Amino acid sequence: MEMETWRPVLVFLLFLPSVLLFCNSANAKRSPLFPAFLKAGLKQSSDSGRGLYETRYFTQGLDHFDFTPQSYGTFQQRYLVNDTHWGGKGAPIFVYTGNEGDIGWFAQNTGFMYEIAPYFRALLVFIEHRYYGESMPFGGEEVAYSNATTLGYLSSTQALADYATLIIDLKKNLSSEGSPVVVFGGSYGGMLAAWFRLKYPHVTIGALASSAPILQFDDLVSPYTFDDIVTKDFRSESENCYKVIKNSWKEIEDTASQPGGLEKIEKSFKLCKGQGQGVENWIEIAVIYTAMTDYPTASNFLVPLPAYPVKQMCKAIDNPTAGNDTFARLYGAMNIYYNYSGTETCLAAGGDSDEHGMARGWSWQSCTEMTIVEGGSNNESILPPATYNYTEQAVACQNYYGVAPRPHWITTEFGGHDIRRVLKRFGSNIIFFNGLRDPWSGGGVLKSLSNSLIAIVAPEGAHHVDLRFSTKEDPKWLKTVRTKETKIIAGWLEQYYSDSRST
Amino acid sequence: MEMETWRPVLVFLLFLPSVLLFCNSANAKRSPLFPAFLKAGLKQSSDSGRGLYETRYFTQGLDHFDFTPQSYGTFQQRYLVNDTHWGGKGAPIFVYTGNEGDIGWFAQNTGFMYEIAPYFRALLVFIEHRYYGESMPFGGEEVAYSNATTLGYLSSTQALADYATLIIDLKKNLSSEGSPVVVFGGSYGGMLAAWFRLKYPHVTIGALASSAPILQFDDLVSPYTFDDIVTKDFRSESENCYKVIKNSWKEIEDTASQPGGLEKIEKSFKLCKGQGQGVENWIEIAVIYTAMTDYPTASNFLVPLPAYPVKQMCKAIDNPTAGNDTFARLYGAMNIYYNYSGTETCLAAGGDSDEHGMARGWSWQSCTEMTIVEGGSNNESILPPATYNYTEQAVACQNYYGVAPRPHWITTEFGGHDIRRVLKRFGSNIIFFNGLRDPWSGGGVLKSLSNSLIAIVAPEGAHHVDLRFSTKEDPKWLKTVRTKETKIIAGWLEQYYSDSRST
Repeated sequence: MEMETWRPVLVFLLFLPSVLLFCNSANAKRSPLFPAFLKAGLKQSSDSGRGLYETRYFTQGLDHFDFTPQSYGTFQQRYLVNDTHWGGKGAPIFVYTGNEGDIGWFAQNTGFMYEIAPYFRALLVFIEHRYYGESMPFGGEEVAYSNATTLGYLSSTQALADYATLIIDLKKNLSSEGSPVVVFGGSYGGMLAAWFRLKYPHVTIGALASSAPILQFDDLVSPYTFDDIVTKDFRSESENCYKVIKNSWKEIEDTASQPGGLEKIEKSFKLCKGQGQGVENWIEIAVIYTAMTDYPTASNFLVPLPAYPVKQMCKAIDNPTAGNDTFARLYGAMNIYYNYSGTETCLAAGGDSDEHGMARGWSWQSCTEMTIVEGGSNNESILPPATYNYTEQAVACQNYYGVAPRPHWITTEFGGHDIRRVLKRFGSNIIFFNGLRDPWSGGGVLKSLSNSLIAIVAPEGAHHVDLRFSTKEDPKWLKTVRTKETKIIAGWLEQYYSDSRST
Repeated sequence: MEMETWRPVLVFLLFLPSVLLFCNSANAKRSPLFPAFLKAGLKQSSDSGRGLYETRYFTQGLDHFDFTPQSYGTFQQRYLVNDTHWGGKGAPIFVYTGNEGDIGWFAQNTGFMYEIAPYFRALLVFIEHRYYGESMPFGGEEVAYSNATTLGYLSSTQALADYATLIIDLKKNLSSEGSPVVVFGGSYGGMLAAWFRLKYPHVTIGALASSAPILQFDDLVSPYTFDDIVTKDFRSESENCYKVIKNSWKEIEDTASQPGGLEKIEKSFKLCKGQGQGVENWIEIAVIYTAMTDYPTASNFLVPLPAYPVKQMCKAIDNPTAGNDTFARLYGAMNIYYNYSGTETCLAAGGDSDEHGMARGWSWQSCTEMTIVEGGSNNESILPPATYNYTEQAVACQNYYGVAPRPHWITTEFGGHDIRRVLKRFGSNIIFFNGLRDPWSGGGVLKSLSNSLIAIVAPEGAHHVDLRFSTKEDPKWLKTVRTKETKIIAGWLEQYYSDSRST
């Protein structure tokens, strides 16, 4: 198997008018970004949130930083509100800084906020990120996503300014300017939450940034980190499981290149007709996202999965009844990721739904400012061999969108270099949660930076597991994490009210 | 005399294609903004800075926050460098965050940086603010200033991102990424310095923000504050002086409305022919800017002035040989402000040169985001009666530029409300200097916010007096201020090097 020189930023671009850039070859292997890029099992994004929230809209400015006539455009930004437990004027407001997708989905997967709201008598607000879900400038997706001229306002700094503007207005409308605001976010949303506290301390008193790889930029992290963690996750369950997956890529390629090979693959994996071509990518996605969502309880974030899905996958692979057939072993594992509900009659390796409307926006963001460092795999990697080549990515992005990435922008605007020194005596009130099973933890803040910039690290945790609704089966360490977070937030609020009285 | 309902944001708009907005009537009274808007005496802006610096240029991005094709435009940003005392790799870099004008002028009036450079072995860098001086996007002033579409990128947030981008690049080119950067600024430049430390703590370790009215926005300050301080300044010298000036406005108007009155005014004030009409505005400007630059030594910042010019003006007014003629008394005072060098054969009340290229840019900035709260005068005011009416200003701005002000943007982006609580445990290493003789001190931070967000207040000080070159005649309090500032900066640097060694 040849080394790839570039691994694509995205593979799921079904909504994009063209797949020129990322899907132009069978070499397009995987989509190792955020949970965003998934064939997601949830179908609740457009329903009422099962009573979790009311939907509201805010007239938001298109461009906060410029004053061109164009910048005065507006759009309707969606936000979700739950005031069941709100204590009213002056009581806390908990805000989720929405990430790259339909905000309803994030609200439904951030049970932690709901569960602590009664204790704090907090109002819950989930703000949708511009250019995702219903929050579309230029009258809708068709124009907003048509080219760089309209897409150009999709950026993290604009999103943060949206949040500041909306929150200030909301508090004013509630006549509750004195309410302390705490922000919450996971993944990219966690990055936004941390940055929001750093840039807008006058709008929020503190941030819970869960699984936020704010250091996954520029030269701050090795491009192998992500793969290394995926590898470690599987290897920790079983050396054999790791080897079977690692060695499968060659076997798949060898088989596929033989006459009748694709049919054999289709049959082995019970793929729907004509889906054999994408199988390598399909397996890789399952491996990566299982590592990311290796939760200790059954979950339904990206797809329905059992508790400890990495363990379950390895159990299937290590199953002695499967004999020596690599494909049969792998099929058992894939069936866990792609068919845990058991409802699929055949599996679709090539089809992905992007139900939460994430792929298009993140493709743009990762091609402009979110130039995340990831995608190299070394000799030990469980994933197919790949080198990280920023230049090729940049050229591809430039060709596709007509604008070049700005690879140093995120560290210019938000920092990252020398973070321990920089934040040792600057800033306060951020919790950085990371689960070390999460491949994104390699770009996270894993050591506390000061007394109030606190890292919480869960060796057994996966991607923003702390933010999920609790279950009866939650292990002790997870309960401990949530208790710790709750206590820290309580401390911020106490301090706020105490300071407010004294100043 | 009728109450004005609106006092103009600017009177000096000679470069603007039209004076529709601000100068459309004799009611246009004054220009109480920054030193920017002055008939300045200095003529050194385009020379070599008398050996104070070398001029360099940086290719700067037009729009840091958006990714539209337009945003990828670039322009040449001018910056000035003095490396006479630089200790080389790892030694400190002192950066002046340029304000609304030709950067050479600010460099020449920020002697403090030159004087402490040898002690710290610091490199000096003065960065010009976009859209001022030579740092013009769109190939030059003609296009850049032609309309809101091109002017729209003139904003404080873009300027701050310019500074971050330039500084990071400069350090890289010097192979001196480890150099600590301290930023300095006065007036609007001081606001930028303070905000730069708050928003870009990863780029600068601390800021000296001199006479930075970061609280002169929104509902944070009374619109009477500015006038109150001007009034207090003159009254503190002499009650009679205050009364003569205060009562002069009516006398001028009465005289001007009589047949031959303007000629009488011209003669009384030795104005050049036909200049009588603008005399009220002309006097008001002198009163305001004399208060702002009430320095303890002879100076030549805005115009050549003696030491303690308010005292000198009042001395002229109180001069017993002037008899009871108000105009004769006032003429003596005006002669100090407008003709201290004694070289003018007649005085020009209507003409202003805007030599430092400030008026046009600030007019735009004050009509979009820099909606500074100022311009009301109460019954006690030494200045002509005026009410503060934001709405009228907004309408005038909208009519003139075709875009509306965003009066809440500065407090949304940079804060200000509840600043004592917000910054009590957030941020570090800012010195807020204010002289209480300075009318802008009303919008300044006058009490320390924490152990490292330190207010230095000089009751006898005027507008960023601390930043000026020292003289042999400097009073003790001024020396003490500068020593204190130097020690604090030394502390930041010590801490930086100590932290760098330990992390």
